[in-house]
Amino acid sequence: MDYYSSQINRLVEELAHLPGIGSKSAQRLAFHILNMPKENVESLAAAITEARNNVRYCKECCTLTDDEFCPICKNDRRDHGTIMVVENSRDLAAYEKTGKYEGVYHVLHGAISPMLGIGPGDIRLKELLVRLQKDADELIIATNSSLEGETTAMYISKLVKPTGIKVTRIASGVPVGGDLEYIDEVTLLRALEGRREL
Amino acid sequence: MDYYSSQINRLVEELAHLPGIGSKSAQRLAFHILNMPKENVESLAAAITEARNNVRYCKECCTLTDDEFCPICKNDRRDHGTIMVVENSRDLAAYEKTGKYEGVYHVLHGAISPMLGIGPGDIRLKELLVRLQKDADELIIATNSSLEGETTAMYISKLVKPTGIKVTRIASGVPVGGDLEYIDEVTLLRALEGRREL
Repeated sequence: MDYYSSQINRLVEELAHLPGIGSKSAQRLAFHILNMPKENVESLAAAITEARNNVRYCKECCTLTDDEFCPICKNDRRDHGTIMVVENSRDLAAYEKTGKYEGVYHVLHGAISPMLGIGPGDIRLKELLVRLQKDADELIIATNSSLEGETTAMYISKLVKPTGIKVTRIASGVPVGGDLEYIDEVTLLRALEGRREL
Repeated sequence: MDYYSSQINRLVEELAHLPGIGSKSAQRLAFHILNMPKENVESLAAAITEARNNVRYCKECCTLTDDEFCPICKNDRRDHGTIMVVENSRDLAAYEKTGKYEGVYHVLHGAISPMLGIGPGDIRLKELLVRLQKDADELIIATNSSLEGETTAMYISKLVKPTGIKVTRIASGVPVGGDLEYIDEVTLLRALEGRREL
């Protein structure tokens, strides 16, 4: 890319390293940034470095935050006895968007994957067990419905059930609005197994 | 979005302002950045501010660069008598990628658009005319094949032709690999009009 000058090249390359951004998008973003007002560019760069420099795990639920505790754990109106276990902070955000869940979360930052060499010690499970020693009524396991997510769910369930805490798993089945015709067999079987009386 | 802490929120919002990045992509990018090594984040932020702070127009061809002249205008092996007029620096990059064009460029930074109130004075036309007073053999107009691009091409052609410089327009027609069945009528007519003897 010797048709751009060196700093523009560097910007394009840095942007192209981000996930989901190919070389064309990186160019478009770079030229957008080059045409932005300087103060907006400073603000973007500051947001990037500040968020990164101050990010840490919430001392309670392990989600990414810039404070000791995250806004959800700090919220007294949430039900701290109900803990939903998710794989990452984006999954937490997905459930928060429903606006209906009133409990708190626990973010594992991964899932058990023998294939990738990720064992129970590599995700935030120890922190979960410590939390469960305080009072907890229900543990809702909301790891993904993938092989790794299911493995993790089984593992946690076996670990926690002996303590007497209620352990549940979010339902697996046909997505709302989904057309049966286009849904894979495993999901169809799950939906059948999970059928409920009307 | 009160489920993320304030600095993470700010980062997501800043990223969502970029073109082609919706709120989901912004979240994915933000969490990717939060998980990147600190030095890579510093490097990304520095690339953004440095490129923006040092960007300027090449004194010859007006493309965006961080030096007085861009790498192409500085290159003695290019044919400085052949000037290709493009709308923006990304179009220049597109032609450079072909690796076959040996002339130089002139970047207008826009196209004439009566609809958007962009007149000939709002794009880098004056700079082009100054360049043409020095020696130039051919002016290749490679503005887009849109209404604005065509208007601009016509305008420049009328302006430059009286000076005796050869003015050409890149061909419009069926894209290579294009299936006639799926190509719009205007393009098909252009391809017919532009037919050449074999």
